[in-house]
Amino acid sequence: MKPSVPKGTRDFTPQAMAGRNYIFDTAKKAFHAFGFRQIETPAMENLSTLTGKYGEEGDQLMFKVLERGEKFKKAARNASEDSKESDFASQALRYDLTVPFARFVTQHQNEIGLPFKRYQIQPVWRADRPQKGRYREFYQCDVDIVGSESLWSEVELVQIYHQVLSDLQIPGFLIKINNRKILSGIAEVVDAADFIVDITIAIDKLDKIGLEKVNEEMAEKGVSASAIEKLQPILQLSGDTEEKLNQIEAVLKSSETGMKGVEELRFIFSQLAPLGLMNAVALDLTLARGLNYYTGAIFEVECEGFKGSIGGGGRYDGLTDLFGLKGVAGVGISFGADRIYDVLEENDLFPKNVDVLDVMVVNFGDKEVAYVLDLLQELRGAGKSCELYPDAAKMKKQMNYANKRNAQFVIMAGTQEIENSSVLIKNMETGEQSEIQKSKVSSFLS
Amino acid sequence: MKPSVPKGTRDFTPQAMAGRNYIFDTAKKAFHAFGFRQIETPAMENLSTLTGKYGEEGDQLMFKVLERGEKFKKAARNASEDSKESDFASQALRYDLTVPFARFVTQHQNEIGLPFKRYQIQPVWRADRPQKGRYREFYQCDVDIVGSESLWSEVELVQIYHQVLSDLQIPGFLIKINNRKILSGIAEVVDAADFIVDITIAIDKLDKIGLEKVNEEMAEKGVSASAIEKLQPILQLSGDTEEKLNQIEAVLKSSETGMKGVEELRFIFSQLAPLGLMNAVALDLTLARGLNYYTGAIFEVECEGFKGSIGGGGRYDGLTDLFGLKGVAGVGISFGADRIYDVLEENDLFPKNVDVLDVMVVNFGDKEVAYVLDLLQELRGAGKSCELYPDAAKMKKQMNYANKRNAQFVIMAGTQEIENSSVLIKNMETGEQSEIQKSKVSSFLS
Repeated sequence: MKPSVPKGTRDFTPQAMAGRNYIFDTAKKAFHAFGFRQIETPAMENLSTLTGKYGEEGDQLMFKVLERGEKFKKAARNASEDSKESDFASQALRYDLTVPFARFVTQHQNEIGLPFKRYQIQPVWRADRPQKGRYREFYQCDVDIVGSESLWSEVELVQIYHQVLSDLQIPGFLIKINNRKILSGIAEVVDAADFIVDITIAIDKLDKIGLEKVNEEMAEKGVSASAIEKLQPILQLSGDTEEKLNQIEAVLKSSETGMKGVEELRFIFSQLAPLGLMNAVALDLTLARGLNYYTGAIFEVECEGFKGSIGGGGRYDGLTDLFGLKGVAGVGISFGADRIYDVLEENDLFPKNVDVLDVMVVNFGDKEVAYVLDLLQELRGAGKSCELYPDAAKMKKQMNYANKRNAQFVIMAGTQEIENSSVLIKNMETGEQSEIQKSKVSSFLS
Repeated sequence: MKPSVPKGTRDFTPQAMAGRNYIFDTAKKAFHAFGFRQIETPAMENLSTLTGKYGEEGDQLMFKVLERGEKFKKAARNASEDSKESDFASQALRYDLTVPFARFVTQHQNEIGLPFKRYQIQPVWRADRPQKGRYREFYQCDVDIVGSESLWSEVELVQIYHQVLSDLQIPGFLIKINNRKILSGIAEVVDAADFIVDITIAIDKLDKIGLEKVNEEMAEKGVSASAIEKLQPILQLSGDTEEKLNQIEAVLKSSETGMKGVEELRFIFSQLAPLGLMNAVALDLTLARGLNYYTGAIFEVECEGFKGSIGGGGRYDGLTDLFGLKGVAGVGISFGADRIYDVLEENDLFPKNVDVLDVMVVNFGDKEVAYVLDLLQELRGAGKSCELYPDAAKMKKQMNYANKRNAQFVIMAGTQEIENSSVLIKNMETGEQSEIQKSKVSSFLS
């Protein structure tokens, strides 16, 4: 009988919403400062728009919308052992924001024009097995620039990461940057294109298991001895970003693609330096997010005291190819809203005023309430949040509510105060209480 | 091949989103001023939560979520002529915000406490036949106070309507108010409880077809001659709100329920008068929204030059009864966001700056861009939205983009300006262009 929500979904209480709104409002402010504009797409997409875009697993984890009426009846009549889910559905719920965005750009290309800078903050649905921190409904927050190959876009997106994460005071965040072309270049140079995934996984373990074990592991996977030898300088990169790029360049000089990657990273870092952002970024060759998807820069963001990334992205070409619109390059980043929420909560970083009530007015009866109505209007006009307790309940009950509601001040006006044209104001933090002329309350509180 | 969205759903382009955000931000500001807090519930609810709450039509128009994997296979194996949609689904998409809110209050009652003031702005889904202004996915925007029977809540909600619609400059809006108890009282007094719907429909036509035809129509529906006679004073109400209430009172004095309704309306209007809101409200006995749902006040909002209501609501008792939590009274209103959008658009009432770009910087090449990067940072820090055109494209292309993007100012810096430590600023409205020291740009633009 006790009502509940579907497995893996959540209600957001006022407190949780206040925290989430704080995160999204902070992000939106930065997005707007950089000229990005918001779009929204429908929760449901045609199944044909989504199917096959996320691999077989994605097709399975996608929530599909059941046919209704005659279409349902027909599907049920024809149903058998061999029925497919797609026999019963022609629409599905959004699985991410990227494919709907690609569909959007293709569909509205003439209207929006290119380049096009958009952000999108909407929920997506995936029938993953729910576990701590993983939900079946969760918000994604994506920022993309499409229709340009300019590396200034990469610079801009790093700036945005830096702005938002600084504004949120995320502790010790680091924007790790890599380039898919460098990874391709490495595979090319060591003549082990088939092992690119194994190689990056091995590199990734360097910190944990050490060089010797990494080399062993690559050998076990079948990477040739000569390839492993050629890889040694890459595995032993040292120095600052520029020195590392020089070492990589020395290894990759025979690969045109690899050299292009080095050049791109050089450009990005060289523009970030005068902006004072070098402390917040790091070259990281082990970054291999969405290997098959990204074509240039790859980003991933981590922070102190949190396992896993709080954001990521990169450059992709041909976003809209699948929908028949060729040659649209793009680059984008996303923010892991749930994880950022957890980081802020664990570090007690939500501003104190994110879910407070400025003023609660005690209800002593209709006459007393009528007396303060104009004051309430005045305070609200001055930007204060003000609540009148709706019922003339016992004082204790009303004060309990004020506490629970996190009220900063409580205003009381009874017969005596009405006679004096005053009100009592109680500072809920200090407990101090003072009688103030009604006409002076607004300036007293500001 | 051309991609599209499902029937009855929409993409929101940046321009549409800017307008919608303007509406929702304006509303949220008022909600917060009155101490309401936001919640969100999942898009999917358990089918058992929603089924039967919206009548048979609602159950049919509800979008259900197809079972997956083994559960789907089992349903398909057992399918037949007689299969029901619920055999293939145990979850459905939110059909409105009210039932999920009732579920939320029941589920979180201990955590949230009562009274509880919430607002909720989320999409809902209904498989209605799409037509102009009616969509299968649309946003609802609801504001409710639950856990109190105080009529101050009704007063507050009228204040909120007035605040939001004034802030949006909605032309000639009128908040019509009725009370379900008065309608019950009328049915009781004329001894025609079964005809309450026919009577209110007839009253509703008074303006259009006149008193005589209304009386005829009621007779045809089977309302007795004596009942019709008793109804005459109600049909011929005249004067201001107080005079009308006196006339109603005279008719209803034998009905306790009816008299309670009159008393409630008297209270609400008597509190609205000193707030200066009487011009924006009107007593309207023909209001019969959700007759079976509301138990006290009923609201409906209309405005000049728009057919249909742009908002509505009322008092309900026992919102959470169906979920086993008894005795929780509530009152709420909702805003018709799509309709309000149309009204603002038709009357050209969106603020001019709702989707403008403050500054676009022309891209003359990497060196030139590097020169203005710090200026861009400064302007963004000062709250300006600034875009750098990503590519060093032809001037004409970049200026076209600036126009399309609604840029207020365009900044240009070439070799000459770099030498002068200046930039050229073009005012895109006047066409005026001036050379300004780079260090002075921020104060020039503010």
